Amino acid sequence: MKASVLHKYDESLTASNWVTYEDVPDPKITKPTDVLVKIGGAGVCRTDLHVIEGQWRSRMDPDGKTLLPYIMGHENAGWVEEVGSEVVGLKKGDPVILHPRLSSGFEIEHRRGEDMHGTGTFPGVSENGGYAEALVTSVRNIVALPKSLAPKAVAAYADAGLTAYHVAKKASRTLLPGQFVVAIGAGGLGHIGIQCLKAMCAAEIIVVDMSDMALKLAKESGADHVIKADGNEVEAVLQLTKGFGAEAVIDFVGEKGSIKKGLAMTRALGNYYIVGYGEDIQISALDLITTERNIVGNLVGTWADLNELMSLAERGLVHLSTVEYALKDADQALHDLNAGKVKGRAILVP
Amino acid sequence: MKASVLHKYDESLTASNWVTYEDVPDPKITKPTDVLVKIGGAGVCRTDLHVIEGQWRSRMDPDGKTLLPYIMGHENAGWVEEVGSEVVGLKKGDPVILHPRLSSGFEIEHRRGEDMHGTGTFPGVSENGGYAEALVTSVRNIVALPKSLAPKAVAAYADAGLTAYHVAKKASRTLLPGQFVVAIGAGGLGHIGIQCLKAMCAAEIIVVDMSDMALKLAKESGADHVIKADGNEVEAVLQLTKGFGAEAVIDFVGEKGSIKKGLAMTRALGNYYIVGYGEDIQISALDLITTERNIVGNLVGTWADLNELMSLAERGLVHLSTVEYALKDADQALHDLNAGKVKGRAILVP
Amino acid sequence: MKASVLHKYDESLTASNWVTYEDVPDPKITKPTDVLVKIGGAGVCRTDLHVIEGQWRSRMDPDGKTLLPYIMGHENAGWVEEVGSEVVGLKKGDPVILHPRLSSGFEIEHRRGEDMHGTGTFPGVSENGGYAEALVTSVRNIVALPKSLAPKAVAAYADAGLTAYHVAKKASRTLLPGQFVVAIGAGGLGHIGIQCLKAMCAAEIIVVDMSDMALKLAKESGADHVIKADGNEVEAVLQLTKGFGAEAVIDFVGEKGSIKKGLAMTRALGNYYIVGYGEDIQISALDLITTERNIVGNLVGTWADLNELMSLAERGLVHLSTVEYALKDADQALHDLNAGKVKGRAILVP
Amino acid sequence: MKASVLHKYDESLTASNWVTYEDVPDPKITKPTDVLVKIGGAGVCRTDLHVIEGQWRSRMDPDGKTLLPYIMGHENAGWVEEVGSEVVGLKKGDPVILHPRLSSGFEIEHRRGEDMHGTGTFPGVSENGGYAEALVTSVRNIVALPKSLAPKAVAAYADAGLTAYHVAKKASRTLLPGQFVVAIGAGGLGHIGIQCLKAMCAAEIIVVDMSDMALKLAKESGADHVIKADGNEVEAVLQLTKGFGAEAVIDFVGEKGSIKKGLAMTRALGNYYIVGYGEDIQISALDLITTERNIVGNLVGTWADLNELMSLAERGLVHLSTVEYALKDADQALHDLNAGKVKGRAILVP
Repeated sequence: MKASVLHKYDESLTASNWVTYEDVPDPKITKPTDVLVKIGGAGVCRTDLHVIEGQWRSRMDPDGKTLLPYIMGHENAGWVEEVGSEVVGLKKGDPVILHPRLSSGFEIEHRRGEDMHGTGTFPGVSENGGYAEALVTSVRNIVALPKSLAPKAVAAYADAGLTAYHVAKKASRTLLPGQFVVAIGAGGLGHIGIQCLKAMCAAEIIVVDMSDMALKLAKESGADHVIKADGNEVEAVLQLTKGFGAEAVIDFVGEKGSIKKGLAMTRALGNYYIVGYGEDIQISALDLITTERNIVGNLVGTWADLNELMSLAERGLVHLSTVEYALKDADQALHDLNAGKVKGRAILVP
Repeated sequence: MKASVLHKYDESLTASNWVTYEDVPDPKITKPTDVLVKIGGAGVCRTDLHVIEGQWRSRMDPDGKTLLPYIMGHENAGWVEEVGSEVVGLKKGDPVILHPRLSSGFEIEHRRGEDMHGTGTFPGVSENGGYAEALVTSVRNIVALPKSLAPKAVAAYADAGLTAYHVAKKASRTLLPGQFVVAIGAGGLGHIGIQCLKAMCAAEIIVVDMSDMALKLAKESGADHVIKADGNEVEAVLQLTKGFGAEAVIDFVGEKGSIKKGLAMTRALGNYYIVGYGEDIQISALDLITTERNIVGNLVGTWADLNELMSLAERGLVHLSTVEYALKDADQALHDLNAGKVKGRAILVP
Repeated sequence: MKASVLHKYDESLTASNWVTYEDVPDPKITKPTDVLVKIGGAGVCRTDLHVIEGQWRSRMDPDGKTLLPYIMGHENAGWVEEVGSEVVGLKKGDPVILHPRLSSGFEIEHRRGEDMHGTGTFPGVSENGGYAEALVTSVRNIVALPKSLAPKAVAAYADAGLTAYHVAKKASRTLLPGQFVVAIGAGGLGHIGIQCLKAMCAAEIIVVDMSDMALKLAKESGADHVIKADGNEVEAVLQLTKGFGAEAVIDFVGEKGSIKKGLAMTRALGNYYIVGYGEDIQISALDLITTERNIVGNLVGTWADLNELMSLAERGLVHLSTVEYALKDADQALHDLNAGKVKGRAILVP
Repeated sequence: MKASVLHKYDESLTASNWVTYEDVPDPKITKPTDVLVKIGGAGVCRTDLHVIEGQWRSRMDPDGKTLLPYIMGHENAGWVEEVGSEVVGLKKGDPVILHPRLSSGFEIEHRRGEDMHGTGTFPGVSENGGYAEALVTSVRNIVALPKSLAPKAVAAYADAGLTAYHVAKKASRTLLPGQFVVAIGAGGLGHIGIQCLKAMCAAEIIVVDMSDMALKLAKESGADHVIKADGNEVEAVLQLTKGFGAEAVIDFVGEKGSIKKGLAMTRALGNYYIVGYGEDIQISALDLITTERNIVGNLVGTWADLNELMSLAERGLVHLSTVEYALKDADQALHDLNAGKVKGRAILVP
């Protein structure tokens, strides 16, 4: 089959070519729980640029020799092509989306539903992924799609969307009418998170971003209030919340000072959810104690979360902007993403 | 002041006159925590008819002599007229709505927020209420209204709306996208409950009612599916839910077979919430065990719940249809209610 | 291998012989996720008598021909003998206990940890079980045992113990110091449940039973108060709880009037947990509403629950009385159980 | 009456005299919700030394003139002497313990049970406290004591014990058998926290402390494992927990490196509870995200919590070591505490 293959890391992200469109061996079912999926769409994500830079090398490819050449792509959706002997309930042609984590299912974390914890692999990051015509994965990672959802339209929910849903779900379980939730950052994750919050709770949604375009998207996504991050965003949030701060603050940025500001926007007894990363969380113990606030870590969602998110998508409660690229143009898509030229999410279509 | 006073029970509800518009002594502040409220609107509720019938006599007026003559009205809103010496944060003219239960605040239930449990009284049911120009109550029962909400527009939320909100909140805390909630009955409580569910969770809402008009109201209130209760409603729900039933069923009716049907609509691991009453709940222990379902009792909401509901109202997320009557026409309003002639909720305005 | 085989139902439970000790084909691994377990102990349970009576025939063996002859035994523990090609983390000789439900693991209930819901089979009830020298099951059902726990000592936790743990865990999550929990019935399940409650919460434990011997066992298991079920047990519980009733009532009996009494012992805002069965739950909707109580259905526990219970057993926080029978004497064990001659749990040892 | 009065701050804590035993005006009931309490015992707490040092001056006494001279003592218990006209359920002679926070009860935090949030005062810190023969407080702060508990034996639970209970309760709500909880610090708070954990959950308790005496006390309090904090305590915890860390870590120290170590001991998906203070919490966002851990702030407990803790004390499930001093020797008690000469908690008895 055809795939777009990474042969070499490029730490400075300056090379004119990163991945090569070429023939690779067809993936094959080897285990009875395997499923061969014909790719309908593969999301091109900022993480892919980090992979090219070699940021993940120490964790996924310690000797720098084992992984490459390999196929990126960790946001995958398509159609079942063939199933292993123990797979039930799936048949050729069924539209599916793939959970990004491949876990054994036998550890206690997995048996409690925490699919992203315990041991496991990340197809597209730690092994071959979906920048290809097809992919073999385990039945454990397959989420059946409603007929109304085209694989290429939803592929980017598999990781970015799932992360946004996971934290929005966590926050919405405790948020009540009359309370506030702040989303810092209305980008790829943020604008999905806002839609999920809108669908799942009745707290007032305040969105903080530096970009006017992002704030416009935030409004369309359901924000009740938008605040330009111009240096006075903490004061602006305090003013909207009668000086108390918000019961929940979701930080999709995690750098450039957002953490300190996000904590300052969080009300006593409230939760600060960290999603983006780059900087340290730093706060005096006394400050956290006297206000009895919590700092909540958030990873990608569970398999069940991905099902739930697909229900929101099917009902039109979340919507994702995408730009299609042919699989053979993967390199162009990656360069466009790096140059900030992609509006919405780039999707590779074989 | 003027009030509409009940002097006599009427078991058959056939008398031409039930309450009399007359002069009564002005209510006065006697305790430092008292608040004198000028009534802006008092809801006329089916419970008031039950009071007239004497259904509450055994609980609230055991000897049949203590309570009468008295002033009904347990859904009250208005403006602060005067406050006791220990009341803080309230001043003359502030618009307010009154929680229907007057509890001491010193019992452990009250300290845990469960205002409707422990010992307490029900103004308008167990003592003078709001079919009057004014009412004295405790600061504990006062919920400040946003400026945008007129007392007469929200008075009926104080009991009926609060009950609907309470159960909708309970259900919405566990409902997830991809799941279903059934509301049995889209009347006074039901149509508020549907709006609350819509605002607070992303489950698909199915509404079952015998009346086409109620189903129309349900649609307007946010129902995703409506089902005519024609004898086949259980099958219709099962069909919509792929044969499994709904994760939550809220029974606002509680009689005429709704309980048995409601339980039959409830999915394994799901919750059946009982709100309406009239019949017995009956189910074999084995049936409940093998499906691990729960039957959940629901009363009116807490003081905090009433604050939350007012936030929903302020933001336009719930809406209540009302018909105004002058306080002097209380008797007419009660007769109209008994005759089924009131569309929406009747509100007495002094 | 040898097994004790049921060839024929006996509705009156009067036959002198029910199961026959005989040669059967050796069980073999057929799927890569299979595990062959050498049985160390198999619990003999009242459910087995119900199987012999034919009570489960309509659900498990509708035509009365498919299942028989077959091998009972749904409480099984032993040692790994051989594993399929995809099984990781288990090797020959590892001591294990088997979860009683064999589910696919691919349904959303299973992915949320609810192993006992969704589709699945019950080895020992719906297909061959552990009254044998060995058994083939799926790796999904295997719980590794700590070295300190002998399979024959813990086998009976697999179903009876797991059910008791499951409900005790559910109740203990909400019980606080100063609150009360009533256990109705201190038999096989009850005395495990009492020990679990003692280990997992600080509520005061009241045990109600008709038998002095059971109440003695209850005391040894950690009951703070024991009450003889002599007709005045409701009053006795109300007296211990200052007239309010208990915040949680766990009914391990579910018949002979225990349900009505259990509900009457449950405090406002409290939970009545039904575990045993035989009669109907019946209560007026009004009664449940005004007190805002819940009726909670309970099935056997999850795979994670079984792990947790084994931790309690390893640390000596729960203890189970057992009586050993040789596998060839299975018929004797069943007749002794039916005659009420078994103290503690009968365990078949090959 | 007599009281021990603070007239002057002493930043270096070197003065030979801090408080003076002298005559002060008798406290009097002024509001109908007031309660006059005859002090039976007042705990002498490290916070009192911080008050003397002036650490609280900026928050409680901004101009340095308003508060002094004043009476310290924020851990108070005694007997009701007189009640205001609106107080119900309390009479002269009733033994009581006082919640340390005096809140209005009218804010939404208070109506949700969060007595330590919203506006309020701290008797003994922001106004006169219990180093005296009597104290006037609000009925809202009164918790009735069981007859079996002497006020002087339980006074120190009012703040230190309540804080330990509050965090132990929070942790125990999520801890399961087979999981681990680490308590860092087995001092005044820690040893109460350990006993509460033992009573309320079945997780294995690991205690880390630098002092052998504290570890001995930890063992007596119910620790399953004790670890000397000798620089290798993180490794020791990881070894006990199979390399994963503990599901919950409660840090009663919050300084001298305990925060960094405590976070390193916390398992993925686990909670690090901060109680002690002195240093900053610092951790990379990425580290918190990939492990999906939470950092939980903890303050003193609620009024309901104090009731629950008294239940544990009454049943002998928690025990507190105390050393009595006469009220006139308050200055000696404070100097002994400062010199590290008090074993257990010092209690002033009038």
